[in-house]
Amino acid sequence: MKDDLTISIDVMGGDQGPEITIPALDLALVRHPGIHFLLFGEEEKVRPWLDTHPNVAAASTFIHCDVSIAMDEKPSQALRRGRRKSSIWLAIQAIKEGRADVAISAGNTGALMAMSTFILRTMEGIDRPALAALWPTLRGESIVLDVGATIGAQTMQLVDLAVMGAAMARAVFGLQNPSVGLLNIGVEEVKGLEPVKRAGQILKNLDLKFTYHGFVEGDDLGKGTVDVVVTEGFSGNIALKTAEGTARQVGEYLRMAISRSWLSKLGYVLARSAFAALKEKLDPRRSNGGVFLGLNGIVIKSHGGTDTVGFASAIDLAIDMARFQLPVKIARDIDTSHKKSIQNSDDSVGKAKLS
Amino acid sequence: MKDDLTISIDVMGGDQGPEITIPALDLALVRHPGIHFLLFGEEEKVRPWLDTHPNVAAASTFIHCDVSIAMDEKPSQALRRGRRKSSIWLAIQAIKEGRADVAISAGNTGALMAMSTFILRTMEGIDRPALAALWPTLRGESIVLDVGATIGAQTMQLVDLAVMGAAMARAVFGLQNPSVGLLNIGVEEVKGLEPVKRAGQILKNLDLKFTYHGFVEGDDLGKGTVDVVVTEGFSGNIALKTAEGTARQVGEYLRMAISRSWLSKLGYVLARSAFAALKEKLDPRRSNGGVFLGLNGIVIKSHGGTDTVGFASAIDLAIDMARFQLPVKIARDIDTSHKKSIQNSDDSVGKAKLS
Repeated sequence: MKDDLTISIDVMGGDQGPEITIPALDLALVRHPGIHFLLFGEEEKVRPWLDTHPNVAAASTFIHCDVSIAMDEKPSQALRRGRRKSSIWLAIQAIKEGRADVAISAGNTGALMAMSTFILRTMEGIDRPALAALWPTLRGESIVLDVGATIGAQTMQLVDLAVMGAAMARAVFGLQNPSVGLLNIGVEEVKGLEPVKRAGQILKNLDLKFTYHGFVEGDDLGKGTVDVVVTEGFSGNIALKTAEGTARQVGEYLRMAISRSWLSKLGYVLARSAFAALKEKLDPRRSNGGVFLGLNGIVIKSHGGTDTVGFASAIDLAIDMARFQLPVKIARDIDTSHKKSIQNSDDSVGKAKLS
Repeated sequence: MKDDLTISIDVMGGDQGPEITIPALDLALVRHPGIHFLLFGEEEKVRPWLDTHPNVAAASTFIHCDVSIAMDEKPSQALRRGRRKSSIWLAIQAIKEGRADVAISAGNTGALMAMSTFILRTMEGIDRPALAALWPTLRGESIVLDVGATIGAQTMQLVDLAVMGAAMARAVFGLQNPSVGLLNIGVEEVKGLEPVKRAGQILKNLDLKFTYHGFVEGDDLGKGTVDVVVTEGFSGNIALKTAEGTARQVGEYLRMAISRSWLSKLGYVLARSAFAALKEKLDPRRSNGGVFLGLNGIVIKSHGGTDTVGFASAIDLAIDMARFQLPVKIARDIDTSHKKSIQNSDDSVGKAKLS
């Protein structure tokens, strides 16, 4: 357990910047009194918020940055304009230089990913970073990755996602032996994309620190059939946004249904504790924070539109990751996985299945 | 308007076969008194249901089949075992021979697709059939395709899906100029899979009988942002199942929340008309029936687990399609689209965008 954690914050990130991020740090300090912050942002905009949040000011080192990246800037433009001087860049740079344990931004996802990859580089043996999301389920929470960092995946990239997701499940859920499923369009082994089928064959034969469950389908996400769901970024992003949209749609149907008659409205008033509980269940702030995996450092992406409570959740997640020393664990697991995969494919020379 | 429609029914299809399908035909006859059925199934199992449904018996011609395909049979096995003698095969064969206008089955999706493609063949210019689903939205209903008939899609296959989906929207929704969107992981033109980006370029420049809206994301499905959402079968199937799963998950959260206290339960009783309305909104039977597009004939896939009401909805859909003469319209639109695409690419020789 590391008690002197330092968290690097892109104060300018998100739709509202310091107005949300600074009060969120105040909340986080109540839960985690020992932590220290490195704050990166435009002094003029951040200072008034620090003045009204003395606890945050006392726990922080503030570093002025000339440039803030806009939420809609293209990653290439953001890299050109924000290199070495934007709040996102400098927040990540602090991890690279060992001055912080983890970085958080609610800013532009593409820019955050591009800069994180540029500064921290992917781990040995990993081609590309992945973005992992916490997914609320009927059984609690699962981890789904990749939800949009990179599009498409070859067999071994899917295997790597499984290894990284399992390591994250051990960190966040405290599970010794998380279950891992591959997202597919049927549970039979004959169905689906070739890389998904081949990754299934490999995962079945790898003896790693998780249980390979097999294929799962879209409706298994909400059920929580497995602790970790692995898919490439295109399908993962579509699944994530479809689920968010459907939850809002059902909520809207419910609202319309309730407002149809005064009797329903009365019923709503009586059952309001139930509706409050439902609202809390569906609250996207509860599971706020995606994690970039596969880099030499931990970067957390908070939802850009989140509020104080949501940004504070992302800080909780960051602290979990940093205490668990996630990158070290992932690097070790990836190394083991690659060695076993090579061994298995040597063992099975001539066997069509694994070739 | 064709009043003497004949509908070919795989009576054995679905989890419960004739127990569901025959009573559903009774319901359909109330709504569509003039229609005629060709019924394919095992005499021993179907006859008792016809005896108790004399209206159906009077409107039907029954044809005995020795073989019924199981719900979990692999398509290849189903083709071997069921060729020329299963209820699915013969129901489709009746369209090919001009004895029926449309075929419906609640049976094994893979077998239905394999046999439909084998018997009816894809239309000229179409490589592969697609499965289109009706998707309930906040604005009504949309069409989403492909939801799992074929995996992956090249640029022109996505353009063909747009043309076929738009034709179906004209048939089912009665729209002159439906809007069509491409499912992607961002609305910016720089994002996404290469074939999706290229299809977007082509659709923008094709002057067809629909409005190309641009890219849509997963959360646009529930909003009903466009009338037709185009995607390849892997992502489409994952989106469909994720949405179904999320709707069930939210319903389950609601049930758990309501049962937490007697006050909530009382509220539930008072608001029960609202909950009934919500239940109806979420009722998957309302939008039952996927349509195979791109074949020389109309085949409707009903959900295997549906009931009488759901199977009757699939018959409504089948009648809409047959009256509209969907395959003829699609063939004409595809032909126009291909001619214009070739012309556009000739016009733009040397332009990198369309090459």
